[in-house]
Amino acid sequence: MQRRLLLVSNSTLHGSGYLDHCQQHISRFFGTNVKRVLFVPYALHDRDAYTRTARDKLKTLGYEVDSIHEASDPVDAVRKAEAIFIGGGNTFRLLKSLYDNQVVTEIRTRVLQDGVPYLGSSAGTNVATVSINTTNDMPIVCPPSFAAIGLVPFNINPHYLDPDPHSRHMGETREQRISQYHEEPDTPCVLGLREGSMLLVEGHKATLLGTTKARLFTREKPSVAT
Amino acid sequence: MQRRLLLVSNSTLHGSGYLDHCQQHISRFFGTNVKRVLFVPYALHDRDAYTRTARDKLKTLGYEVDSIHEASDPVDAVRKAEAIFIGGGNTFRLLKSLYDNQVVTEIRTRVLQDGVPYLGSSAGTNVATVSINTTNDMPIVCPPSFAAIGLVPFNINPHYLDPDPHSRHMGETREQRISQYHEEPDTPCVLGLREGSMLLVEGHKATLLGTTKARLFTREKPSVAT
Repeated sequence: MQRRLLLVSNSTLHGSGYLDHCQQHISRFFGTNVKRVLFVPYALHDRDAYTRTARDKLKTLGYEVDSIHEASDPVDAVRKAEAIFIGGGNTFRLLKSLYDNQVVTEIRTRVLQDGVPYLGSSAGTNVATVSINTTNDMPIVCPPSFAAIGLVPFNINPHYLDPDPHSRHMGETREQRISQYHEEPDTPCVLGLREGSMLLVEGHKATLLGTTKARLFTREKPSVAT
Repeated sequence: MQRRLLLVSNSTLHGSGYLDHCQQHISRFFGTNVKRVLFVPYALHDRDAYTRTARDKLKTLGYEVDSIHEASDPVDAVRKAEAIFIGGGNTFRLLKSLYDNQVVTEIRTRVLQDGVPYLGSSAGTNVATVSINTTNDMPIVCPPSFAAIGLVPFNINPHYLDPDPHSRHMGETREQRISQYHEEPDTPCVLGLREGSMLLVEGHKATLLGTTKARLFTREKPSVAT
């Protein structure tokens, strides 16, 4: 068994529908062996509505969706999952719910030991990494730790935005924020994934897919285009 | 003694220098009784450089600056302060350092009980409120709690940005983020302070100063312009 992840920057690209921009990659990623996908809607407040959206979309690609919030035992649902999809929303709310439902370790085990394919988008991509230290989201709730599922040994900044030279807004650019993270000791690389990009991880190989590329930030080194 | 706070959205407005846009308000706020201001540079990595910037600027307004990071005992420095200024940068780093140096309670006591004037900008404004749940900053470090100094019974979103109808970026707008915060139970009001705005709090009276106004968000109610 080998690790298989599809980490998407964002679920919806401007001007298209939910998961439209990455649907071919999702079909190729899950393939024909997967029949049912365990969906994790913890990042949004209305879990029922969110599950309907994901269920309707994945049905058009040929997959049935079970939602973890409909299972009587979330840990058992992860144990039985053929494939896992964690959707976007608020990363703090998502990680707190993953801890509250005690599924962080179980998801890690299933993906890294059993080779269960993992699809993440936005916040679902953030929680697949080392930590949520490089999310863009507002800290609306406080998870017990910023340490995440740790399916890869680096962090991702989804919805990555290049600096806008015409901006008059004085908040830090995304690049400045990631640089501040790298002022802290022992911080891992951060992949800035632009909207429209996704990372396919198969074993030890990572392939950038989509149309918009990414930027890689390494502590004490200049960032590079990928 | 009564509470006196000047909570500025941002230190630097586009096209002008550090604290230029609010310097008249700062002079009026500290007045002629204050001679020395205790500066807290914890939100930025280079505390020496940050202190130089603040010291140089406040000197032009007639105030001497002592930095808390130069004091052998930070708690004692707070105890002896005539006035406190907490500068902006990363809100998570700032709050973590305030806790690490055990000055959260001491600053609250000095401001609320002893009437020591408190100036905050950006992250320094965030930590003056109930919690840092409505910061825009990247969570580069993890403070022991999101609860802040609590000098006012509401939260602030500094650098508040109105939704941009022309944006093609799919990250949540500031309004959507604050709405997600208000989906959580028992969450206080949030004042969205635009860059160029500041809030003067004197006792139980709050006055909006500056040129750009604010927007007030209350749980389960429509937001209102102020």
